[in-house]
Amino acid sequence: MALALADVLAFRQVRTTIWSPFPEAALSLERTRRSLRLPEFELPDAVLVTADPAVAFADATLAVNAIPTQFIRSAWSRIRDGLGGDARGGDALGRLPIVSVAKGIETERFRRPTEILAEVRERPGRPSTDGGLAVLSGPTIAAELARRLPAVLVAASSDPELARRVQATFASPWMRIYTNDDVLGVELAGALKNVIAIAAGIIDGLGLGSNAKSALLARGLAEMARFGTALGARTETFFGVAGVGDLATTCFSPEGRNRSFGEALARGETSGGDAGTSFGGGAATSVVEGAPTAKAVVAWARTLGVSMPIAEAVHGLVFEGLAPAAALADLMRRAAGAERIG
Amino acid sequence: MALALADVLAFRQVRTTIWSPFPEAALSLERTRRSLRLPEFELPDAVLVTADPAVAFADATLAVNAIPTQFIRSAWSRIRDGLGGDARGGDALGRLPIVSVAKGIETERFRRPTEILAEVRERPGRPSTDGGLAVLSGPTIAAELARRLPAVLVAASSDPELARRVQATFASPWMRIYTNDDVLGVELAGALKNVIAIAAGIIDGLGLGSNAKSALLARGLAEMARFGTALGARTETFFGVAGVGDLATTCFSPEGRNRSFGEALARGETSGGDAGTSFGGGAATSVVEGAPTAKAVVAWARTLGVSMPIAEAVHGLVFEGLAPAAALADLMRRAAGAERIG
Repeated sequence: MALALADVLAFRQVRTTIWSPFPEAALSLERTRRSLRLPEFELPDAVLVTADPAVAFADATLAVNAIPTQFIRSAWSRIRDGLGGDARGGDALGRLPIVSVAKGIETERFRRPTEILAEVRERPGRPSTDGGLAVLSGPTIAAELARRLPAVLVAASSDPELARRVQATFASPWMRIYTNDDVLGVELAGALKNVIAIAAGIIDGLGLGSNAKSALLARGLAEMARFGTALGARTETFFGVAGVGDLATTCFSPEGRNRSFGEALARGETSGGDAGTSFGGGAATSVVEGAPTAKAVVAWARTLGVSMPIAEAVHGLVFEGLAPAAALADLMRRAAGAERIG
Repeated sequence: MALALADVLAFRQVRTTIWSPFPEAALSLERTRRSLRLPEFELPDAVLVTADPAVAFADATLAVNAIPTQFIRSAWSRIRDGLGGDARGGDALGRLPIVSVAKGIETERFRRPTEILAEVRERPGRPSTDGGLAVLSGPTIAAELARRLPAVLVAASSDPELARRVQATFASPWMRIYTNDDVLGVELAGALKNVIAIAAGIIDGLGLGSNAKSALLARGLAEMARFGTALGARTETFFGVAGVGDLATTCFSPEGRNRSFGEALARGETSGGDAGTSFGGGAATSVVEGAPTAKAVVAWARTLGVSMPIAEAVHGLVFEGLAPAAALADLMRRAAGAERIG
């Protein structure tokens, strides 16, 4: 996503720097302008690449967080420290608006990406708030964005001015953006759809067809909305572009990582467990956000008393060695009686 | 759908007869047990096939309407007359429960399938009611059902006993069924999703990718729900298996007729207009329910004052010679400001 968004900003002639926590990866991207994760994409020359936060954040007026959820805390702590600690950089970071495109929930503390960012920016006497934080979400398989195929997104912030600023900054001929003030709903939808997408991939791996996958999508969406509204999110967010729209592309695009991981899992081509949360090989390895998020969601839903049968099944498949066919049979048994959405 | 459902009933050892209004088609199916529309499917020997309504409806205890919406009125009038007119057959038909699997809206009178069936059964002194009528809907691409791939459906009726009877009759290891009492919502969702699917096919024909198609799905769903609730349907029906579930399979399955029609239209491989509402060739020709339904929906929405930009675009493409790229550009321009679902 960092590459696809840098492409938009370069097109808009916005001065853009990509920061990577990995010096070798930064050097390779800087020189070749290419990444194995987006084989056909070439990074515009105007985009700078660095592993030095002091370089990346000098004069920055807006930051994008494209770091996967489970690594946000450590990476941004490193940025904070690299900016000179509490005295200078801490405050600089505290004032910088950040737009997050990560889609997950932290396994241990059940924190959403913007909550983690708020905590990293927290200082004595300056409590954690979501001020200056926004989310950019929607059906955005990066490989398609990188080809400049059309996409519709949602810019969400509790600060309407920041939402409109994000909307204006990333608007381009191939990217149209709605605003939304339900940050909680947009972030939860983005996180939860990755869990459902693993189940969709399992259906693909078992060769069960579009009807089964679409029923799963509908029941998964109901499960997402149930979880979200229990936490105070708005139901309609789940039925919007950043909810059902993102869920659909994640479940159906051949290029979705979480779906591909589920498919490989069903075919026995990859293993579950924490090792399974990275997927692919070598420099093309990418993080399957849905796997750790399934862990977080299942634990959280149990404490909330919310029924999440699909997330439970994904958790069983990825972390407890449950067989795909058994998990599916269990889900099919549930479809009887009257359908409940809320 | 008639073939796929006959297969379920034969599996359940329910005595089943398929009636066709076309004697030649009936004879061919009876002899070969095969149809060009489902090339790999073989009709079980236990299923009878006839073009004679008196044979088909003798001793019938439940009828399934799998006739496309625009032909229901004429076909069922023929059945009614074939059963001996008002004196005998009219009453027999009046008492027979009918489950409809048609998904469309009549162009001239804006009638749903069960409304048409109620009107055909109407007699002097016996007003039209939806008593004894049910709908079976959901993500059910027939080619997948015919391969006995798993599907989840909804049996909807204002009569809970009939809904449960339909649920029990068609339940099988590969078909799980929910009940629902929102007949209006289930029928409108089934009709409207075919219109959105034509737009999804156009996106495929233009090669615009899953992100664009998923955004269309989300905005199409919002449009479906807006239209449905304006007429008194329940919002949550559109977010259930028979709403978003059916919409997803119709937009993404390569085998969906409405999607395929839209794709061919965008590629210039077929023409719009009323001729375009049949699609394919020879005995494999099938009816594209979404085309006449777009006509009905656009006219109806205008009288209701409901905004239906995607249905309007499909109508323009199919009936007014609008160019696909121009229609898409217009839709993309709309995505700005705050997202509205209701």
